[in-house]
Amino acid sequence: MLERRTPIPVGEAVKRIMNHEWSGQTENVSIQESFGRYLSEDLRATSDVPHFDRAPYDGFAVRTIDTKDASQTNPVEFEVIDHIGAGMVTAKTVSAFQAVRIMTGAQMPEECDAVVMLELAKAFEKDGKNYMSIKRAYKPGDNVSFKGEDAREGDVLIKKGTKINPGIQAILATFGYAQVPVAKRPIVGLYATGTELLDVHDALEPGKIRNSNSYMIAAQIERAGADVHYFGQLPDEFETCYEAVKSALGKVDMLITTGGVSVGDFDYLPAIYEKMKAEVLFNKVAMRPGSVTTVAQFEGKLLFGLSGNPSACYVGFELFTRPIIRRMLFAEKPHLRKEKAILDVDFLKANPFTRFVRSAVTVSDGKLIASPSGLDKSNIVMSLAGANSLMILPGGTRGYEAGSEVEVLLLEDFDGSEWPW
Amino acid sequence: MLERRTPIPVGEAVKRIMNHEWSGQTENVSIQESFGRYLSEDLRATSDVPHFDRAPYDGFAVRTIDTKDASQTNPVEFEVIDHIGAGMVTAKTVSAFQAVRIMTGAQMPEECDAVVMLELAKAFEKDGKNYMSIKRAYKPGDNVSFKGEDAREGDVLIKKGTKINPGIQAILATFGYAQVPVAKRPIVGLYATGTELLDVHDALEPGKIRNSNSYMIAAQIERAGADVHYFGQLPDEFETCYEAVKSALGKVDMLITTGGVSVGDFDYLPAIYEKMKAEVLFNKVAMRPGSVTTVAQFEGKLLFGLSGNPSACYVGFELFTRPIIRRMLFAEKPHLRKEKAILDVDFLKANPFTRFVRSAVTVSDGKLIASPSGLDKSNIVMSLAGANSLMILPGGTRGYEAGSEVEVLLLEDFDGSEWPW
Repeated sequence: MLERRTPIPVGEAVKRIMNHEWSGQTENVSIQESFGRYLSEDLRATSDVPHFDRAPYDGFAVRTIDTKDASQTNPVEFEVIDHIGAGMVTAKTVSAFQAVRIMTGAQMPEECDAVVMLELAKAFEKDGKNYMSIKRAYKPGDNVSFKGEDAREGDVLIKKGTKINPGIQAILATFGYAQVPVAKRPIVGLYATGTELLDVHDALEPGKIRNSNSYMIAAQIERAGADVHYFGQLPDEFETCYEAVKSALGKVDMLITTGGVSVGDFDYLPAIYEKMKAEVLFNKVAMRPGSVTTVAQFEGKLLFGLSGNPSACYVGFELFTRPIIRRMLFAEKPHLRKEKAILDVDFLKANPFTRFVRSAVTVSDGKLIASPSGLDKSNIVMSLAGANSLMILPGGTRGYEAGSEVEVLLLEDFDGSEWPW
Repeated sequence: MLERRTPIPVGEAVKRIMNHEWSGQTENVSIQESFGRYLSEDLRATSDVPHFDRAPYDGFAVRTIDTKDASQTNPVEFEVIDHIGAGMVTAKTVSAFQAVRIMTGAQMPEECDAVVMLELAKAFEKDGKNYMSIKRAYKPGDNVSFKGEDAREGDVLIKKGTKINPGIQAILATFGYAQVPVAKRPIVGLYATGTELLDVHDALEPGKIRNSNSYMIAAQIERAGADVHYFGQLPDEFETCYEAVKSALGKVDMLITTGGVSVGDFDYLPAIYEKMKAEVLFNKVAMRPGSVTTVAQFEGKLLFGLSGNPSACYVGFELFTRPIIRRMLFAEKPHLRKEKAILDVDFLKANPFTRFVRSAVTVSDGKLIASPSGLDKSNIVMSLAGANSLMILPGGTRGYEAGSEVEVLLLEDFDGSEWPW
């Protein structure tokens, strides 16, 4: 008996998922562990930067009042009374026509208001003392980095939800964040279903294939910023699957199953959701691949029933699971980043449904160019390896010609898009 | 006394580093640990895919010879003698006008050469037996995925040096790679030098700043694909630094120091290289920031003397250290990926040297757009946080106007560029 399902548009499916209340949790990790994590609070400056007036160049700190008569024809001499490197503070007081030899990054002597760059001063000795002379006048502030010039205490420097990159690591260290508040990585449970599945360690058998979806989805979960809890493989047996799914859900933030959502005679997930009394948000989406993707909600947790077909599984995760994970990481833009690109080859297959074609986006002369990354057969895992994007080809046309403008969703990106796309 | 150094072009500096013999090592890790690592061998298909003829759809497996007279006006009936799901193999022999109910992914019965899609067959019962009828003829191969259709045993599927993404994880599992040959992560030693440096845990003191470079570079090392061995901070004292550098070098594949390479009076790295009798490859590069970047070689290992200035340090790492790390990860294109972009704002500062401006590249209407990510003062770490690229602005002009075409180096990219750029 063929079950009848009503397909809904992709946008509607995403909306039904994102309508649910989901928010992330925060934890503190050491700065060393924070690289690649997501900030769970706005990052604020804990002090001015610089927190003292400092020399941005090697040279001589002077009082500009003493320089006012200096010119090419009238060099002015200064006694050099101290010599300080970065991290040092002079203990001396700088009086009229005195200077301090100062290195990049060192704190300005209190009386000084400019730095003469080393190349513009002539150093010499006289009577066993150090001197230098200059041939131009300076204005207060010349070659000085002032306290608070780069940032003011209390400023919001980086927004919550941002992925911590090397530059942000530098900022965290500058402001003394030995501990960093980051989003807890959501725990995503994973079960593969299918009597046909062998383990990666197993030799091939007639009619059976090795389970590839679990490893793929585990990597997608990690790429999205969450941790995977892999429960293993399940045979296509109703009771076994029912018990396993119900018990797994208690241990994770959300649960993914692969396989068993189609209308085949051994596809038990729909019946399992029914027996659990889970609320099915949708069980058919007007898209290819992945039309049978089924998402349900049970006691505040989401169950993602992804297709057992590798490409459909991949696309289903990226469109429907990833944004929930990113929202739990406090992302303002949890969806795959969407951009425009030029289609590089003819793609003349007609299709009534929106297609998400695994694609390689490259840049040529500053413009994004997209090509399908393999044959567009949804059972070909090879095309997933070269994919850095999904090309969106809306349905209802006779296909697309090379040179057409298309939309692409970027997979290896951390900026994301808002919704609706 | 001002030391005189002769600046060399960036391209020449990169060449001097890459001329050295460097190659990576290989190790085996479990498939679970291999995500994000770099393949150290070409990845080959260990079997055909599929490794048996299979049904790509739910339906009925038939012998096409029995279908040849079927038409709208002449339905042909088949007895359904078995019912198999994915992973099952029928034990029965299919004779004339018999069929097998077959699920997506299941192995074709030996005698059958086509699949009738479920929607196109009419199932019924007669005399307690299962039947179905069809109204059209089928050709051999209709709706069958043939053995070896997706990949042939022995095919090279993925090239050595490729970063393992979720799609490659699926391929590894499909072909039974429970253990995966990957490049060993090079170990990069790191010392921060500078009497002005406080630890991230320390309260601020007059004239001193917290060490931010170490955390930043550690993250850059990790982003590049290597492991960091952080040795700590060193004061600006010649003997201490000399002993520390020499002893650290024995424990790592290459060593980075930050600070101490300028011509300031407390910059000891040049003298340390001299005392070690290290071969200095260059000590001045015609670029901003990072002109004082110094690279030396000692007993087959590279010493990267990066500037203590955060931006110069950052740029020096990406231009000079990253490609060596990537080469040790077997990358064919170890350099930062270079693309063209449109400058979004005026950048009118003149400069005799090539500038590498920390930039944010975005995409607008399918075109790359680049803007400086902060004030272009080389001591401002804030601009590093928003940088996903370095804009190359060749020297010798009066600046660049909005709308100009510029070249950008992408920082968050794994494809890379060959050399010369």
